[in-house]
Amino acid sequence: MGVDSGLGDLRPALLFDLDGTLVDSVYQHVLAWHRALETAGIDLSIWRIHRRIGMSGGLFANALLREVRRDGSSLDSGEVARLRELHRGYYAEVIGRVRALPGARDLLLRLDHEQVPWAIATSGNRDGAETVVRLLDVVPKVLVTRDEVPFAKPDPHLFLAAAHQLGVDITQSIVVGDSIWDMLAAQRARALGVGLLSGGYGAEELERAGAFLVYQDPADLLAHIDELGIRMTALSG
Amino acid sequence: MGVDSGLGDLRPALLFDLDGTLVDSVYQHVLAWHRALETAGIDLSIWRIHRRIGMSGGLFANALLREVRRDGSSLDSGEVARLRELHRGYYAEVIGRVRALPGARDLLLRLDHEQVPWAIATSGNRDGAETVVRLLDVVPKVLVTRDEVPFAKPDPHLFLAAAHQLGVDITQSIVVGDSIWDMLAAQRARALGVGLLSGGYGAEELERAGAFLVYQDPADLLAHIDELGIRMTALSG
Repeated sequence: MGVDSGLGDLRPALLFDLDGTLVDSVYQHVLAWHRALETAGIDLSIWRIHRRIGMSGGLFANALLREVRRDGSSLDSGEVARLRELHRGYYAEVIGRVRALPGARDLLLRLDHEQVPWAIATSGNRDGAETVVRLLDVVPKVLVTRDEVPFAKPDPHLFLAAAHQLGVDITQSIVVGDSIWDMLAAQRARALGVGLLSGGYGAEELERAGAFLVYQDPADLLAHIDELGIRMTALSG
Repeated sequence: MGVDSGLGDLRPALLFDLDGTLVDSVYQHVLAWHRALETAGIDLSIWRIHRRIGMSGGLFANALLREVRRDGSSLDSGEVARLRELHRGYYAEVIGRVRALPGARDLLLRLDHEQVPWAIATSGNRDGAETVVRLLDVVPKVLVTRDEVPFAKPDPHLFLAAAHQLGVDITQSIVVGDSIWDMLAAQRARALGVGLLSGGYGAEELERAGAFLVYQDPADLLAHIDELGIRMTALSG
């Protein structure tokens, strides 16, 4: 403190995924994609959509398509755009039932109080992200969406951009996410990964993808935040 | 064959769960329960509902309630009945989008062709079960629902009743299900358990609950059915 130790800045920062991590929107997204794909003539089991959600849109569509098209053909950009438009419409029908996850707001406010830098980085687009971020009733200093990066998760760009905009070291950052795509992107960015069960993955799936700890939801993470090496002051009042 | 070996009847039988195992209905059920609970003033994260679905209705409601009520109070029968009625209404809105899972019909027809006895045993009620069984376009000889047994899963009654009605030995039966409640009920019935990923659980969750093999969905099970020790003849045509 005040004396240059030669260690540089080793304070941790938290980089959060959004859907399934801070807001309870994964299942609505999954069923909206199911309807969109079916409307486009692509019949896919719902669990397969669930396990691929959170990827970049282009990867997502082609990963799903591989399950049904034996010829290895992919979707062209027009088809991907149409699917996205269908999904956006179906999701809009149910977005009114999306809620913040338990503890999300408390966690973010506590981090602000402790001056721990945090950001949100999502594979979703900016319009959609800003809509659900409002549910948190906390304004993030940094919100990175796929509109700002060339590649979304599991590429590392979103988390690298979030750390850059925060002015923190990515190797001192902890990525918090609910999907294996978050954990893979964290590994590729050389950040640590922490998993949350609130998106519906199993704990072992997240651990195998690189999560060094798994919590139930933001409330559970807040209750155990010392396990991440984040020092909290006693809250007054 | 024809000579009494003293070994008794060791032919295998298959006892199937319904939702998430033969029909792709878990996610719709989950969101219908989420709406029902919210309407009744119970706010619960969706993944917690997902992980408890497939239990008997009474256990399910109280297991969920424990997550939100700190005083240990449970729901009375009137409250459980109201929740069920709300769920039934919300689920009815989306049941038109429920589909049979890939391979479900082919698997059941193949078992009939090979004279392997099979039944369906579900924690759901008879009306709801009969509605989605129609999607399979195969009439089960035995369909056991919670209307016929005193306790649903993870109690063993449903699978024991199914084996009894088929006239097969439960210890030679293989329970196929998508949830840990199926696997626990299988263990308590002294049947073998096989898991399917099509309900959205992770493979390790099913294995830890006792699944000795896990497949993706009915189509994947059919493609590997020899691994269960079920001998198939070569199909003609």
